[in-house]
Amino acid sequence: MSTSPSGTLVISPEQLLEDWQGHRRLTRRVIEIFPEESLFTYSLGGMRPFSVLVMEMIKMGVPILRGEITGEWRSSDLVDPSTKSELLRLWDDVTADINRMWPDIPPHRFQEIDTAFGQWKMPGYAMFLYAIDNEIHHRGQGYVYLRSLGIEPPPFYER
Amino acid sequence: MSTSPSGTLVISPEQLLEDWQGHRRLTRRVIEIFPEESLFTYSLGGMRPFSVLVMEMIKMGVPILRGEITGEWRSSDLVDPSTKSELLRLWDDVTADINRMWPDIPPHRFQEIDTAFGQWKMPGYAMFLYAIDNEIHHRGQGYVYLRSLGIEPPPFYER
Repeated sequence: MSTSPSGTLVISPEQLLEDWQGHRRLTRRVIEIFPEESLFTYSLGGMRPFSVLVMEMIKMGVPILRGEITGEWRSSDLVDPSTKSELLRLWDDVTADINRMWPDIPPHRFQEIDTAFGQWKMPGYAMFLYAIDNEIHHRGQGYVYLRSLGIEPPPFYER
Repeated sequence: MSTSPSGTLVISPEQLLEDWQGHRRLTRRVIEIFPEESLFTYSLGGMRPFSVLVMEMIKMGVPILRGEITGEWRSSDLVDPSTKSELLRLWDDVTADINRMWPDIPPHRFQEIDTAFGQWKMPGYAMFLYAIDNEIHHRGQGYVYLRSLGIEPPPFYER
């Protein structure tokens, strides 16, 4: 189905894209503000450094979009970089890829249930929300890393 | 307007409610797993204890729903509790309030721009996403508190 039984528009595809990219702009600022060494080595409670959390976000974007557009679920084979500038370059590549690929999502796929990567059974909208939510979750962890390093992160509400 | 120009259903009001309550179920488990004293006193990097972050979530739910339903923006006057059981009772009250109030949101309010609390100008859908995102953000910080206390938080993907 491609229309709501009640006909209510909650959010359009274009608005969901802008919500995602707004979060990604904020996450980019968090990457930028990290001291280069801390980005790759600092952690709390035995958790992963922020660069590894960021690579998780980077590796999710295109594979999820490809899956929702084509039904083909293929994991990313990107190699983890070792410098902030390289990490930001990968980030910006994904930004452009998302903008380029987004209009190709067949409208019915937002509601169609698929099994992403042979494992995650959910409608397309839930898969996109999962990617966004996962980014917010890990970025929030990056905020704690920054605060404990004495660095003030950008305000959460600025996108 | 109440329908998308493209007629694409991304997410229905009922699905957005379920997404929110799914996140709230996970956050409830994070509250439960916190040792009572740490919940109210533990923090990292000079940040607020998790109980204070949770009260921010609790105080947001009903006022946002009331605002989107009636156009009246009134902040919560709930008093911060001092025990985990009282915090969970407030949490569960909000869960029931959200379920009760949700069907009363006029469909056009998801897209209508309003100035929430005299300050935040955005469509209704963005206000709800803000509440959900703010919860994910602070819950992610709670995960770091727990990990640094040697406690394993529930998996992020379980709702």
